[in-house]
Amino acid sequence: MNSYLRKNTKVLVTGGAGFIGSHLVDKLLEVGLKVVCIDNFTLGNKKNLHKALRNPNFKLCIFNLLEIQELKKLFNKESFDIVFHLAANSNIQLGSVELQTDYKNTFLTTFNVLNCMKEYNVKQLIFSSSSAIYGEAGEHISEDYGPLFPISFYGSAKLASEAYISAFCENFSINAWIIRFPNVVGDRLTHGVIYDFINKLSKDPSGLQVLGDGNQRKPYLYIDDLLDAIFFIYQNTNKKINYFNLAAKSTTSVQKIAEIIIEKMDLKNVDIKFTGSDRGWIGDVPRFSYDTTKINNLGWEPSMTSDEAIILAVQKELTHRGLLE
Amino acid sequence: MNSYLRKNTKVLVTGGAGFIGSHLVDKLLEVGLKVVCIDNFTLGNKKNLHKALRNPNFKLCIFNLLEIQELKKLFNKESFDIVFHLAANSNIQLGSVELQTDYKNTFLTTFNVLNCMKEYNVKQLIFSSSSAIYGEAGEHISEDYGPLFPISFYGSAKLASEAYISAFCENFSINAWIIRFPNVVGDRLTHGVIYDFINKLSKDPSGLQVLGDGNQRKPYLYIDDLLDAIFFIYQNTNKKINYFNLAAKSTTSVQKIAEIIIEKMDLKNVDIKFTGSDRGWIGDVPRFSYDTTKINNLGWEPSMTSDEAIILAVQKELTHRGLLE
Repeated sequence: MNSYLRKNTKVLVTGGAGFIGSHLVDKLLEVGLKVVCIDNFTLGNKKNLHKALRNPNFKLCIFNLLEIQELKKLFNKESFDIVFHLAANSNIQLGSVELQTDYKNTFLTTFNVLNCMKEYNVKQLIFSSSSAIYGEAGEHISEDYGPLFPISFYGSAKLASEAYISAFCENFSINAWIIRFPNVVGDRLTHGVIYDFINKLSKDPSGLQVLGDGNQRKPYLYIDDLLDAIFFIYQNTNKKINYFNLAAKSTTSVQKIAEIIIEKMDLKNVDIKFTGSDRGWIGDVPRFSYDTTKINNLGWEPSMTSDEAIILAVQKELTHRGLLE
Repeated sequence: MNSYLRKNTKVLVTGGAGFIGSHLVDKLLEVGLKVVCIDNFTLGNKKNLHKALRNPNFKLCIFNLLEIQELKKLFNKESFDIVFHLAANSNIQLGSVELQTDYKNTFLTTFNVLNCMKEYNVKQLIFSSSSAIYGEAGEHISEDYGPLFPISFYGSAKLASEAYISAFCENFSINAWIIRFPNVVGDRLTHGVIYDFINKLSKDPSGLQVLGDGNQRKPYLYIDDLLDAIFFIYQNTNKKINYFNLAAKSTTSVQKIAEIIIEKMDLKNVDIKFTGSDRGWIGDVPRFSYDTTKINNLGWEPSMTSDEAIILAVQKELTHRGLLE
């Protein structure tokens, strides 16, 4: 145990206006850190930073991480202690249609950040990896699972990013905390099943089309638990590369999520139609569960079940949108 | 068993003027295939194709795979049945100095080839991956080993390539044969320990500086065994992704290689100096052995030991250079 998030530590959060990024920014500011956020508002949203923008320890930079010269200027100006690299395409379905999307926004952004860290001597990286790197590997997947054959371009780009982080750590004495996120839920969503269902039902409350057969089942983690775990891992591990699965201990089916949203939106007689295949789209992993023994043994447990996380997230998101008080 | 390399099958070999590529081209032409080779002569050499260039079934295209428009034109013109994608930076040491080298020449070339395969409906890829994807994982590494944390940028770029091949196979019904090459030796070398030692001793036969302590120990496979194994794997497997380690069953130390070369060059009183660390350079994996049970169980064994491969390769390379009759 040797890493601390101390007051006045200066951190960069890439993708800091997105769903997870903006919650992370808020939490880092609460602890008293100086936070610089880069976002190009592709998926992120300035509204998510309404609280942060009132804090004198916060600075917002609006540009694309692919603009390497802008990024170098920023690294040159600020002396970052830690980089939280969260920026990525998070629209997994789009990734298999527009093949440049994940390559550029998920992989190349990481490569650029790593190059700047090397050039400007920043030694700590916290990276949002993903369960998608495991592909369709089945249940109870541990961190040391192999072989790694992702089935989505999102998963490929995250695995390619991990591969490069590894070589940068070895060659330039950088320490990395690679955290393989599960599906994370909360308010300020930019994508995902809750986001989609609420959008669809807001437009047409009489029916809901559900991609797949509704039996896709994944562990959903509440945003507060995710941030708590990231801080916990950072403060309690100190290898060259620290890598962890992160997940709720239970799972929730897509059908159940639909039912929870319909109930919370107080809708009646919604006609739920399933498109029928075992998965939502090509590249979707229909059933997935992580082995989280590694982080549990380190002493961390999520505070909620997957169902509880979904219920709270639906409430918060509906409130965030003004659809619930 | 369903894949055959039939007469008149049209194949693309990228990096076909390089060490392994040019031997592969010769072998494919021997079988009666139509072979198109792309090379930009960065590491490859027209001399390596002297035999192929006399064959009417052979066509040489000289351009860089990063020129995606040229590549698309070629895919549009020729209807390839199979792509052998071998083009890559093979100078592992250079990769940690010039960070763009492996990113562009090893990873991005693969991404471009995959994009063209998708666009022009080519359904079979044979890919030269590498033991470097495993990082410093120890001995007897099987194909399903995890976690994958490469320590060289070459390894990162190969793992990133595998990650993308995987998503392309899943999304666009491509079949891939991923073969994780060990150190391969023979004549027409463009890099590696034999190449370096012969160069050094040709310049100064009185002494030889050996990077590391000489105890680095790896399995060396002779080029003919490598090609034989590639054909064997292709003809005997037919999953979406077929992935195999490939290696000699024994290993040879760097010190022994130095001694074999000195003997074959008929040099006396060579002063061998070791630089002393446990590895040749950062990113070098000092001791490595593959588990090759998977290919052995399929029915393939190499015809030579690692020492025999080194001895034959040294003879052939010295002959190739006109230093032996």
